[in-house]
Amino acid sequence: MNSVIERLRRTTDTIVGADDLRERLASGRQLRIKYGVDCTAPDLHLGHAVNLWMMRQLQDLGHRVVFLLGDLTTRVGDPTGRSETRPVLTPEQIDANAASFLEQVSLVLRTDPDVFEVRRNSEWYDAMSIAELLGLFGQVTQAQLMSRDMFRERVAAGREIGVHELVYPVLQAYDSFAMRSDLTIVGSDQLFNEQLGRVFQQRLGSPPQVVLTTTITPGIDGRAKQSKSLNNYIGLTDSPRDKFGKLMSIPDELVEAYARVYTELPLPTVAALAAAGGGRAARDAKLRLAAAVVTRYHGAGVAKAELDSFRHTFTDHGEPANIPAVTYAAERATILDLLQAARPTESNSNLRRLLRQGAVTLNGERLTDPATPVSLTTPLTLKSGPRTWHRITPVRSSG
Amino acid sequence: MNSVIERLRRTTDTIVGADDLRERLASGRQLRIKYGVDCTAPDLHLGHAVNLWMMRQLQDLGHRVVFLLGDLTTRVGDPTGRSETRPVLTPEQIDANAASFLEQVSLVLRTDPDVFEVRRNSEWYDAMSIAELLGLFGQVTQAQLMSRDMFRERVAAGREIGVHELVYPVLQAYDSFAMRSDLTIVGSDQLFNEQLGRVFQQRLGSPPQVVLTTTITPGIDGRAKQSKSLNNYIGLTDSPRDKFGKLMSIPDELVEAYARVYTELPLPTVAALAAAGGGRAARDAKLRLAAAVVTRYHGAGVAKAELDSFRHTFTDHGEPANIPAVTYAAERATILDLLQAARPTESNSNLRRLLRQGAVTLNGERLTDPATPVSLTTPLTLKSGPRTWHRITPVRSSG
Repeated sequence: MNSVIERLRRTTDTIVGADDLRERLASGRQLRIKYGVDCTAPDLHLGHAVNLWMMRQLQDLGHRVVFLLGDLTTRVGDPTGRSETRPVLTPEQIDANAASFLEQVSLVLRTDPDVFEVRRNSEWYDAMSIAELLGLFGQVTQAQLMSRDMFRERVAAGREIGVHELVYPVLQAYDSFAMRSDLTIVGSDQLFNEQLGRVFQQRLGSPPQVVLTTTITPGIDGRAKQSKSLNNYIGLTDSPRDKFGKLMSIPDELVEAYARVYTELPLPTVAALAAAGGGRAARDAKLRLAAAVVTRYHGAGVAKAELDSFRHTFTDHGEPANIPAVTYAAERATILDLLQAARPTESNSNLRRLLRQGAVTLNGERLTDPATPVSLTTPLTLKSGPRTWHRITPVRSSG
Repeated sequence: MNSVIERLRRTTDTIVGADDLRERLASGRQLRIKYGVDCTAPDLHLGHAVNLWMMRQLQDLGHRVVFLLGDLTTRVGDPTGRSETRPVLTPEQIDANAASFLEQVSLVLRTDPDVFEVRRNSEWYDAMSIAELLGLFGQVTQAQLMSRDMFRERVAAGREIGVHELVYPVLQAYDSFAMRSDLTIVGSDQLFNEQLGRVFQQRLGSPPQVVLTTTITPGIDGRAKQSKSLNNYIGLTDSPRDKFGKLMSIPDELVEAYARVYTELPLPTVAALAAAGGGRAARDAKLRLAAAVVTRYHGAGVAKAELDSFRHTFTDHGEPANIPAVTYAAERATILDLLQAARPTESNSNLRRLLRQGAVTLNGERLTDPATPVSLTTPLTLKSGPRTWHRITPVRSSG
């Protein structure tokens, strides 16, 4: 049993109820693992998949993932700033999102009915009376709910909390009771709600679920965690080539964390990758990481093909083997001038954004100010974005 | 219309929506007056009746009182400090309380179906889904609810607020929409909830109810407002004699307020009562008040009989005509000794409580310390409680 926990621990941040977990794993009983999601449009990335792989490990031992669609709460939606309550999502949209979710989840989880079950929380909330719900509300105080980090931060920032948002944790907590959850594996932002789940289970006479929170790693830009809005994530549905390319673009110092959290490479190998210096060794470490991740999702054959393709496309210095050439007919220019010449179909504002985001390098030097002066005497290598390269060649103008 | 409002104003503290009230009274339409109560055991007193008499005035003009039993919320009860939710009241108790409520209310209100209707809020809450309720919750913020006086006081006092209590105002507010309330007449402690009712009605597309709050007068001890726990109230079901006697016991300075709020004596008469000095004039003013109140509830004949009985029983100085005599065989005693001699069947702790509550006078002087020394040379008049008198006569002991 401890070996199972040891394996899970590789990507675990905290465990609430470790003794319960040990005991339940030892009992031989099939455990019910709560995997609760809301029904907004999903776009799962490697970060989400950390939790899914842990569930997959447990599935491989015979335990059951209960995929819980929070359709009731999604149906209510967020009416902030509206004069009338209005569902954000129609039932059809919820169904479509649920289907898309299942498809993405099945890239990691086993979905055979022995170890996978789909539920919707409307099953119990549609059957629950208002009186029963108020009874649940009586189990918890306003101060307990307001102690949640997110709420305190919102109050501190002067933003409002809708009462439907305030009571949301109560619903999420009751879900754990209703579906008889033994265990849930969540991001640390869900710890409060899932711990409240333990409270409700105990109050209502059930054994409390074990809560595991997972390690969060930064996005591929090395800054915030992976998120759609920052576009710094590797999606589960990204092509093998995109996954490989994005992984090759991460900062060197992220290689260890990514290898530990996103692959099953043995930990000594991970340590060796971390110890790799800069330059070629760093690139080889990244290649190893990228191949391991692609292997995990697409198999060793695809990973090998991507590795070969990458080696064929890029020189040992990390530049593509074939970079399109652009001529520029002046000796002096700004970096924005060069970008405009290289990418004539891009809007000015997009080019400025790329600069602002630090995506532009000239001969390996990052430039952010569009007005940075450039002197063209020899050919220069311009990179704008992770995989967009140009070779700028000065041509003496006829003027 | 203004004359109606003028009459109501006699016992009105604030009106929210005065223009709406004028307009609706002028429309000729039968107005729906919300009279919401919870279903705990009722014991209506003169203070509650102020609101009822205002509703009665409107009934006499053809408007309809909708007596709303808050059975849903009563059923949930207050689970504070309990490990499991448990209704405080059974459905049978709720029904019994509702019947008792109706009986007491009918001492003031007309209950013929043209102008009286009984509803229960379980009618709409039993039919409402959790999703709909969450939609209502989305109309209001946590900060709005917490701005309620009662909640702020509880937080300041370090006491907890159950989430079912926090959301209670939302339910009470929605009631106003569901029952199409035009008007409600409440104590000022209900102003917050009923104003929230206006908000919900407007959001949901209905005209907002007018909210009248009523004047609150002190209890018969001249201190806090009338309440069961302080036993300082005049109950609607008190006998005519009890009503009369309790009114004769109020402090002189309360006569004006009581006459204004609890009777329909013309205001100039009320002013004249207020101007009465002490002694006999004050007693006559109180007799006038007591007779007016008893007339209101039991008719002029009963009031006249009580007036005569009182005059027969009590001297002009306010002492009963016949006071039982008690002999005491010592020259020195404490006030507690005298009380024990006069009321030998009372427990010591009860006698001490009477002292503490200021219910004991000796020759008209209030004594509160049980150890107060008394010297017995002439007969003394001992009063302990509103209508308990003894004449203590010293008898030289044989010792």
